[in-house]
Amino acid sequence: MTERNARRGGRPGAPERADTDQVRRQNRSLVLSTVRRRAPIARVDLGTATRLSPATITAITADLISEGLISAVTVEHAPRAPEADGEPPAPSVRGRPRILLQLNAEVAYVLAVKVAFNKIVLVVADYEGTVIARREESPPTLRETRASFPRLLVALIHDFLAAEKVPLRRVAEIGIAAQGFVDQNTGSVVWSPAFSERDIELVRPVRRAFGIPCFITNDANMIAQALHWADPVVYGGTFAVIFVDYGVGLGLFVGDKLHAGADGSAAEIGHMNHIPGGPLCRCGRRGCLEAFVADYAIWREASAMSPDTDPADARPSAADLLALEAAAKAGDARIAGIYHDAGRALGYGIARLMALVNPGRIVFTGASTRAFPLIEAAMHEGIADALVEDLRRNTIFQTLPWDQDMIITGLIADALARLDSEVFAATDITRRTEIELPREERA
Amino acid sequence: MTERNARRGGRPGAPERADTDQVRRQNRSLVLSTVRRRAPIARVDLGTATRLSPATITAITADLISEGLISAVTVEHAPRAPEADGEPPAPSVRGRPRILLQLNAEVAYVLAVKVAFNKIVLVVADYEGTVIARREESPPTLRETRASFPRLLVALIHDFLAAEKVPLRRVAEIGIAAQGFVDQNTGSVVWSPAFSERDIELVRPVRRAFGIPCFITNDANMIAQALHWADPVVYGGTFAVIFVDYGVGLGLFVGDKLHAGADGSAAEIGHMNHIPGGPLCRCGRRGCLEAFVADYAIWREASAMSPDTDPADARPSAADLLALEAAAKAGDARIAGIYHDAGRALGYGIARLMALVNPGRIVFTGASTRAFPLIEAAMHEGIADALVEDLRRNTIFQTLPWDQDMIITGLIADALARLDSEVFAATDITRRTEIELPREERA
Repeated sequence: MTERNARRGGRPGAPERADTDQVRRQNRSLVLSTVRRRAPIARVDLGTATRLSPATITAITADLISEGLISAVTVEHAPRAPEADGEPPAPSVRGRPRILLQLNAEVAYVLAVKVAFNKIVLVVADYEGTVIARREESPPTLRETRASFPRLLVALIHDFLAAEKVPLRRVAEIGIAAQGFVDQNTGSVVWSPAFSERDIELVRPVRRAFGIPCFITNDANMIAQALHWADPVVYGGTFAVIFVDYGVGLGLFVGDKLHAGADGSAAEIGHMNHIPGGPLCRCGRRGCLEAFVADYAIWREASAMSPDTDPADARPSAADLLALEAAAKAGDARIAGIYHDAGRALGYGIARLMALVNPGRIVFTGASTRAFPLIEAAMHEGIADALVEDLRRNTIFQTLPWDQDMIITGLIADALARLDSEVFAATDITRRTEIELPREERA
Repeated sequence: MTERNARRGGRPGAPERADTDQVRRQNRSLVLSTVRRRAPIARVDLGTATRLSPATITAITADLISEGLISAVTVEHAPRAPEADGEPPAPSVRGRPRILLQLNAEVAYVLAVKVAFNKIVLVVADYEGTVIARREESPPTLRETRASFPRLLVALIHDFLAAEKVPLRRVAEIGIAAQGFVDQNTGSVVWSPAFSERDIELVRPVRRAFGIPCFITNDANMIAQALHWADPVVYGGTFAVIFVDYGVGLGLFVGDKLHAGADGSAAEIGHMNHIPGGPLCRCGRRGCLEAFVADYAIWREASAMSPDTDPADARPSAADLLALEAAAKAGDARIAGIYHDAGRALGYGIARLMALVNPGRIVFTGASTRAFPLIEAAMHEGIADALVEDLRRNTIFQTLPWDQDMIITGLIADALARLDSEVFAATDITRRTEIELPREERA
């Protein structure tokens, strides 16, 4: 009776239910993340930063101390709070001991795994978010299958933790970021340039092998997550991160939250069509934005290959790309024109994003920001041609130098946020692992 | 130090603060909207529907009764709850009196105003959401200016309320839905096919004239809002409403909330570019989706006008459009081809929406759903050509017969939801009006 009700005018539906338990969890999570961000921090500054009442701060921190998650340390001369949100730190009598709070770094670890073409990065961070171990592996991923890759990943995680002597029972969350399309409902990589097979299920095998909560996401999403967690004021509300590299990725925040869409496959700007019937894309369709802008697209064009050339046969090396960029900068009009056209295509793609999503800020990053000076003017030209001025007058554009660890940073922030939103005591981690660990690990 | 923090890995930022006041408001709002939807309703059924505890239901309903917002009525034979979410109503002894709750319909009214080309619709609904008065006006909107239209709108509202004998002091919220681009930050219509001038500020003048909270939004958004409020389970999470009519509109929900974007100008699918340099759009740009799909686009093409023809000079009448549709249905290959091409363009636009936003459901509505059989197959063809199968396998498509009152319904639901989220007593409405009303109204 949906349509009828809608047309009748009255009887609208129900907003979401909230309960005190949820509030408690949310405030607790806020206190934990604020201590993580600003430790060592005094209770009074924690109150200012979180805008929670002194009574709430006292109650929550007492719980967190008794659960073994945070510690109070006494210092003789209180250091100033590292960031004070514009507010001066509360006055304290010089020399009088001050009690500061910090997380117990070893309470729990999180494991972040980045899966890309021929490259797996594994990182362990402690409860404070500090990276304590890192490993890069270079397996030839295209040879992996639906059956073999989950086994390989489990083995890599197992070996990494063993070699780094990270006790498995202390790992509270595993986050995986994969290149390509991800389905969060099934916990799988639906399609990725890293693999020749589709629908590679990862979450369930990893969860089964280690008995640890596991989560999968798209790599570009995690860049947006890293920015948001680093500075939720600047990178908040509705904003977009465009990630130009081997392809074109997008991380999208809506209403201060990562926008994953109904299946977790949102924000696939690289596979949003630019020109119907255009050049061949890695996904098999024609005219996707990526097929005009990605490294292989530039290379295919520069090498005068047909636009029908399979992107797999148009793989430039890093040196090839640097040579192209140098030629364009040195005034080679044909090569400069290729970058110009790529910039215009990117501009049209961004204009489409702006028309649909209206982000307040658009951030550009990725290895190809190196070539950004070659495409930037054309990109803005494309945006202006594609979109009426009324819909683009307030958007802020920003370029960030690329650091590939941003994806890992986002994974860590994301895993710690999930951990913070569960209510657990330090002992729960051990208990959970004792119950769920596979036999060989418990020995 | 944003970028540096982000790259360091640790110290992520802070989630949103929640407090008990917010929970109380949220639960109160949930109870109000559930009573509105299902009245008359017993406390026990209200508990089942909201999943709030009996103690919370008792406390909230006692407050709402004492504030004059709801009433308890005693009935001899309790009617069954109109919808029971699959749960049987609580057993009650036949013949024993039962206490049911309902809203006090006259506590407050909301005013909904739809602004479109040559048409202003004004509707008053009571606190239960029932439409109690409606008026349509047909002013030649293109002649209105930035200065004159706010005055006209205020006068129309004034006359309507006076003629319908709706006491101004009982009107608690005014919602305006405008055709075109809206900026919620400035409360203005940035650009609209209804006006020849841009940036027509409406919220401030209306608020100033009546001393009543006022809100402006895009018309297509309100269709999505109407569907969500009618059935939040089916029309929840991330879903899209495509509204094909004089133009192509989009209402977008993300995470159970209307997605307005940073300035409230999101979801402008009609002005998302389809083909660079394509036919002229009403907004002045070339190749917008609307310039391929809207009524004027079909008419321009069918009349063999140049694609450079100003859309203002390609205005088909309703009869013109019906004749075109009849010709296409009767087998006129040229006309059928025009609809086919429009369908393909729409398909490409929808594929772009799917790539970026990944809605779980896409609903088609609007006057042009009449012509939907002429474009539907081509639209799905366009979607399939534009987007890799992995990104479109789970989306549900649905066509809804058009009822122009859906926009009004959404406005009413939206205004009542805003009212429910404020904590007010029946007497507050009167008090607020006494303070803020302009002098001539207080006499």
